[in-house]
Amino acid sequence: MSATVSPSALVTRFRAVRAATEALCVPLEVEDYVVSSMSDVSPTKWHLAHTTWFFETFLLAPHADAYTPLEPRYAFLFNSYYVQAGERHCRAQRGLVTRPTVAEVYAYRAYVNDAVLALCEQLADDPAHAAWRTLELGLHHEQQHQELLLMDVKHVFWTNPMRPTYRPAPRATPTAVPQGWQPIEPGLVEIGHPGSDFAFDNEEPRHPVYVHGGRLAHRLVTNAEYAAFIADGGYRQPVLWLSAGWATVQDQGWRAPLYWEKHDGAWQEFTLSGMAPIVPYAPVTHVSFFEADAFARWAGHRLPTEAEWEVAASVHPVAGRYVEHGAFHPMSDDREGMQQLFGDVWQWTASPYVGYPGFRASPGAIGEYNGKFMADQWVLRGASCATPQSHARLTYRNFFPSDTRWQFSGIRLATDA
Amino acid sequence: MSATVSPSALVTRFRAVRAATEALCVPLEVEDYVVSSMSDVSPTKWHLAHTTWFFETFLLAPHADAYTPLEPRYAFLFNSYYVQAGERHCRAQRGLVTRPTVAEVYAYRAYVNDAVLALCEQLADDPAHAAWRTLELGLHHEQQHQELLLMDVKHVFWTNPMRPTYRPAPRATPTAVPQGWQPIEPGLVEIGHPGSDFAFDNEEPRHPVYVHGGRLAHRLVTNAEYAAFIADGGYRQPVLWLSAGWATVQDQGWRAPLYWEKHDGAWQEFTLSGMAPIVPYAPVTHVSFFEADAFARWAGHRLPTEAEWEVAASVHPVAGRYVEHGAFHPMSDDREGMQQLFGDVWQWTASPYVGYPGFRASPGAIGEYNGKFMADQWVLRGASCATPQSHARLTYRNFFPSDTRWQFSGIRLATDA
Amino acid sequence: MSATVSPSALVTRFRAVRAATEALCVPLEVEDYVVSSMSDVSPTKWHLAHTTWFFETFLLAPHADAYTPLEPRYAFLFNSYYVQAGERHCRAQRGLVTRPTVAEVYAYRAYVNDAVLALCEQLADDPAHAAWRTLELGLHHEQQHQELLLMDVKHVFWTNPMRPTYRPAPRATPTAVPQGWQPIEPGLVEIGHPGSDFAFDNEEPRHPVYVHGGRLAHRLVTNAEYAAFIADGGYRQPVLWLSAGWATVQDQGWRAPLYWEKHDGAWQEFTLSGMAPIVPYAPVTHVSFFEADAFARWAGHRLPTEAEWEVAASVHPVAGRYVEHGAFHPMSDDREGMQQLFGDVWQWTASPYVGYPGFRASPGAIGEYNGKFMADQWVLRGASCATPQSHARLTYRNFFPSDTRWQFSGIRLATDA
Amino acid sequence: MSATVSPSALVTRFRAVRAATEALCVPLEVEDYVVSSMSDVSPTKWHLAHTTWFFETFLLAPHADAYTPLEPRYAFLFNSYYVQAGERHCRAQRGLVTRPTVAEVYAYRAYVNDAVLALCEQLADDPAHAAWRTLELGLHHEQQHQELLLMDVKHVFWTNPMRPTYRPAPRATPTAVPQGWQPIEPGLVEIGHPGSDFAFDNEEPRHPVYVHGGRLAHRLVTNAEYAAFIADGGYRQPVLWLSAGWATVQDQGWRAPLYWEKHDGAWQEFTLSGMAPIVPYAPVTHVSFFEADAFARWAGHRLPTEAEWEVAASVHPVAGRYVEHGAFHPMSDDREGMQQLFGDVWQWTASPYVGYPGFRASPGAIGEYNGKFMADQWVLRGASCATPQSHARLTYRNFFPSDTRWQFSGIRLATDA
Repeated sequence: MSATVSPSALVTRFRAVRAATEALCVPLEVEDYVVSSMSDVSPTKWHLAHTTWFFETFLLAPHADAYTPLEPRYAFLFNSYYVQAGERHCRAQRGLVTRPTVAEVYAYRAYVNDAVLALCEQLADDPAHAAWRTLELGLHHEQQHQELLLMDVKHVFWTNPMRPTYRPAPRATPTAVPQGWQPIEPGLVEIGHPGSDFAFDNEEPRHPVYVHGGRLAHRLVTNAEYAAFIADGGYRQPVLWLSAGWATVQDQGWRAPLYWEKHDGAWQEFTLSGMAPIVPYAPVTHVSFFEADAFARWAGHRLPTEAEWEVAASVHPVAGRYVEHGAFHPMSDDREGMQQLFGDVWQWTASPYVGYPGFRASPGAIGEYNGKFMADQWVLRGASCATPQSHARLTYRNFFPSDTRWQFSGIRLATDA
Repeated sequence: MSATVSPSALVTRFRAVRAATEALCVPLEVEDYVVSSMSDVSPTKWHLAHTTWFFETFLLAPHADAYTPLEPRYAFLFNSYYVQAGERHCRAQRGLVTRPTVAEVYAYRAYVNDAVLALCEQLADDPAHAAWRTLELGLHHEQQHQELLLMDVKHVFWTNPMRPTYRPAPRATPTAVPQGWQPIEPGLVEIGHPGSDFAFDNEEPRHPVYVHGGRLAHRLVTNAEYAAFIADGGYRQPVLWLSAGWATVQDQGWRAPLYWEKHDGAWQEFTLSGMAPIVPYAPVTHVSFFEADAFARWAGHRLPTEAEWEVAASVHPVAGRYVEHGAFHPMSDDREGMQQLFGDVWQWTASPYVGYPGFRASPGAIGEYNGKFMADQWVLRGASCATPQSHARLTYRNFFPSDTRWQFSGIRLATDA
Repeated sequence: MSATVSPSALVTRFRAVRAATEALCVPLEVEDYVVSSMSDVSPTKWHLAHTTWFFETFLLAPHADAYTPLEPRYAFLFNSYYVQAGERHCRAQRGLVTRPTVAEVYAYRAYVNDAVLALCEQLADDPAHAAWRTLELGLHHEQQHQELLLMDVKHVFWTNPMRPTYRPAPRATPTAVPQGWQPIEPGLVEIGHPGSDFAFDNEEPRHPVYVHGGRLAHRLVTNAEYAAFIADGGYRQPVLWLSAGWATVQDQGWRAPLYWEKHDGAWQEFTLSGMAPIVPYAPVTHVSFFEADAFARWAGHRLPTEAEWEVAASVHPVAGRYVEHGAFHPMSDDREGMQQLFGDVWQWTASPYVGYPGFRASPGAIGEYNGKFMADQWVLRGASCATPQSHARLTYRNFFPSDTRWQFSGIRLATDA
Repeated sequence: MSATVSPSALVTRFRAVRAATEALCVPLEVEDYVVSSMSDVSPTKWHLAHTTWFFETFLLAPHADAYTPLEPRYAFLFNSYYVQAGERHCRAQRGLVTRPTVAEVYAYRAYVNDAVLALCEQLADDPAHAAWRTLELGLHHEQQHQELLLMDVKHVFWTNPMRPTYRPAPRATPTAVPQGWQPIEPGLVEIGHPGSDFAFDNEEPRHPVYVHGGRLAHRLVTNAEYAAFIADGGYRQPVLWLSAGWATVQDQGWRAPLYWEKHDGAWQEFTLSGMAPIVPYAPVTHVSFFEADAFARWAGHRLPTEAEWEVAASVHPVAGRYVEHGAFHPMSDDREGMQQLFGDVWQWTASPYVGYPGFRASPGAIGEYNGKFMADQWVLRGASCATPQSHARLTYRNFFPSDTRWQFSGIRLATDA
């Protein structure tokens, strides 16, 4: 299987993606790179190193004959979960490892970058070489970690009583997006990645599915709407919740989305620009599947299936940006149809994350990328404000467990009637 | 919504089902009724009382005007999870409550039985009365608890180093069932409960679904086959497992199905008749979803979806018996087609447990019966040796989380090719 | 080492103590014998069997040549913590074991009683035989379990929302005991068991200790005094507490002694006779060391050391009764000096539980009786309303960890000035 | 209460102690300052800031009129456990806080140093001012944290699979110290801090205690001796252990002292200079009280009481050095009497940590320094290789819980005979 773009385009893209990751770290102090504020959060330093390890392990080790690792112990430290790629450092201890230093990790990145670019030069005339496909995968992998890095930095900063800020607040203020409903006709449709450009294995094969009909909301649920759910006792009425969701509400003491705090009777939320009053028309974010499901039930609606989402979204181009959900697309206001699909928040669906019919994981350790997580998680569709724009696509299947909230996740409603 | 059978038939059935529950307790000592050997296990005493509480709360309280509870505090003690039916005793403490005594619980059963039968007499001429539907539901509810009661007694006895036995071993020994594969053609099919007889709300509505084609095994995976998986290092190879499954294998130290123990190099299993050598041709049981999934991957196959299962099974009559999986239907040997569908073990499917398209939970507390569990569990199809025969049906959707094993659950393979 | 009383006295005592244990069970239903309501609590059934196992293991096995165990597996089930006596059943699972039944445990008791009495007859003419000493120890061991049995039954009943009662409430109501202070002169004193009658190994050797002088309260802290501590914010002021005590208050949500509940603004407590208003003049009970220490600090006093306690108490005879702390000695009111030493509640001291200088544990498994617990516990002195009268003595050293409260423990103050 | 040395001496000492803390950090990278590798370990950054907070809170706030805090939120972040000094940041989250940065913490130190020195100048003519006593206490407090800092850095480095080193290995190799036994006569002795120089409140009042007689080992237990205990199955024989100690051995999987690892059949230990073979004649260190107690039992001896230790040690001058236990005092070899008292390892005693008779905690928040920990810990005597030499003294009472091992703790034997 070969890459979907040319070697020279991939080399350009490699430079850009690797630089983009480092650009995200510009606002950080050395200390910020080191810690993990909860079990789901990895240190920035680890993200920088792990994405590098991916190229070293899956690209350089098999394809670059003369390659010598800068430090053999990094293979142990920076493997995330690929059991076929050898022993791994315990995930729970990632935030306890002070060495290599940040400077050493940057040196590791540079060392591997050089080796990758040398290999690219060597293979420039062989566009069908399997290495190009691996390189392309590695870039998409690194883009995923760019979003994770922002999720994790946000959580680290929020954990700190000093409440540091990552960047200045955006100037634009979102305004109301008119609500409307996109009808979905019952019948057989096809979903999944169709074509020749890049996709993860879990987006394939494209396959028919029977859609039962309904309507999808044109826009996302807003902070104001979610605040009304809270004010109506949403977090105190067990009948609105799945059983496991209600147990989580009680165990965790949930009273609002992650990062929301009430000050003097008004909701504020922690953003990458610090604490700020919630913006009424902005999409609610940092809600779990359980909260999305409970909100939908309270609203008299439901969540869409991923097939419904893909069908409804298929007539729209991708749009995404690197600003947190405080800033909207200007184009949202003056047109009809599905809006806020990409670039605001990931949208929980009613679809459990399982393989498509006929799904086959890639052979070898790279096959562990997606397939082994196909249990007890839910599909999210779209893309968030933290997703690199070139990483978003119609058939993308993101996935998280029911009770996670540190990702930029929100709600799009659906209804049967 | 009215009941699916006549008042007189329901009265007969009421007597029979209530008596059947008590008949299951004949081998027990008073002490055996009291304890809970793990968080999923309820005391026998509790099952006896909770099934009675169900009739008291949902049938007598709303419909029997003059009914006075025998003991008002039972409403608190014996509510399982119906938040709309009031406060509940903590599940974790069920096994710590020594009063009411077993004798008092039997008296409670008799008291409620009398009141139910009096109500039935009163409503005998009104077959459309909503009470009949509730009575019917209560009987199916009690039959579910008959199976739970056996699961739980088995676990309690196994926990005891004295290893008591519940009943004598069956005399018949299962013999080999020939393997074969039932083809499923790709295309639109209908699944779900179609008709006028009883079904739970989660079996409805009947709806079209696109099936992608494949083949289902005629028979269940046997103990011998599962032992080969173990012998081949099945529990030591992470690549065979879902990520969460492998974590569970390590956390729990799983090395074989629940109840299996190796003595002098040979596998034995704990049964309701005590420890016994595994029977090679008997279906493997007490495996989790994770184990079923890993076994299927090791075997080069997969688990069937619930739609595939229902389509393949739809040409066969229900067959079930009250003997543990040590005894088979005699008819299994000499015919072709799908076998061991009902009456051996529940069969894990590849389908997460979610509502069918258009699913609506019943209004009120009874609506909590099934709907609020539709997250992070898997559908099992068929029926086990512990399922009352009259409780099994083609469209039945049983469900358990990925890591549970104390139910009588086994494996039927499917394959794409 | 031989016993401290004659063979014939020991035989009489054996019959009496064994019968007394069973007499304590008269109010119980079969179900009540089975469960363990928290990790410190053992089932009544287990107490009955374990005290029997003690005689079987340490008396019959070494000394009764022809003795055959009734059931060899009981040795595993009913060993508490004697590692030298073989493998043990996991303490956490004691409450999950329904077999042997209660009837079988009584049969076990009778079987061992017969064998013990036969052995006694055989050894009647050999009063110096080591078996007599073991028999005597076994009787004191069983008396300890009589108190534990009551502590545990009380906790089991309290855990039950039905709140069953163990016995009718006592008729007598305690009245005020006048307070006074017993001076202790500074100087060398001797403490520890002096003589030839029975004592546990941890009461020896008798040894000199320098006492620094102070005064001990004549009577115990009352419920009314403790309620004043609560009303004054005692459970909300960290400066009153040891650091670990304050952590426990917060972790456990302590707001009052175990078994206290506020109903309509008034304190009630759960007793063996059910819920009842607290009796103002009765000694407070079911307080932990942490609470005793915090109360003393709040009161401007301190807890006595065990040496101070023993010196002050040494001029008084032992007095104890089998009634819960709702009934007092009539003699308390009309005399001066130390009162309520024995028979009300155990009294926390400021002395950590360590071996006396020169302490030597008995050889063999019986040496595990006391010595191996000499870390991170505190000495309590006196005896409670649940202690058999013949079991109390001046030099007795009871011990519990800082955060336990299910024992009948209370507070006697001391002061330096 | 005034300070024990002159104002000018205190000023000199202030400069020296503050500088010594920072000197300990010279080998560290910025990343090393940030993390906490287990719940007992604080980040280096936190030690630097907390010792500064101590002066700010207890010295500057009450006594320096014009003092303005550099950053008011530091009062929350860097309070350890003084409940009377206001709210505190959760200890468990100390290692998650990346801001203030290390540079900002150093600036905080400089800012407070300046304010302290200005205050000193102002009070130079008032040697009886209470501030001098607080300053002196703050210096002893900071010296305690110097040792904690080294303990914590060692644990952080050990946790890291890269196993960084803090400093080069010492060149000297310890040689054998001859064993001998110091007799202690029975009788009344006085212990506790006698005089006019500085001591913590827990070392007072000096008081008589009756010592029961015995002998104390001249030297510490060596690695070779401890290895013999391991080789003899010390960690596998429950009869050698206190009950809670044996439970800890099993729960934690202890097989050797913390930091010991077996490579190719030989014991190595992690030191501040990296992994190294154990030095046979060096004192064993990083053992818990439970291990010290078990070793002593195995050796047929016991641990000394703190009174015995103080009596035996009272004829020797203090000696301590800043090298890990790989280097010994040259004077050890050629003299008789008690050796290795100070400067090698803290020595576990058989004495639980409680207040001396008549102990009174200092008033106010500073009274929380020692007193509130007087439960369920054990006294250690002497001083370790990580203790500043000027911080060691005869009457010093260090204390740790039974199962801690990351401190530099070892074993000195005692015996009755």
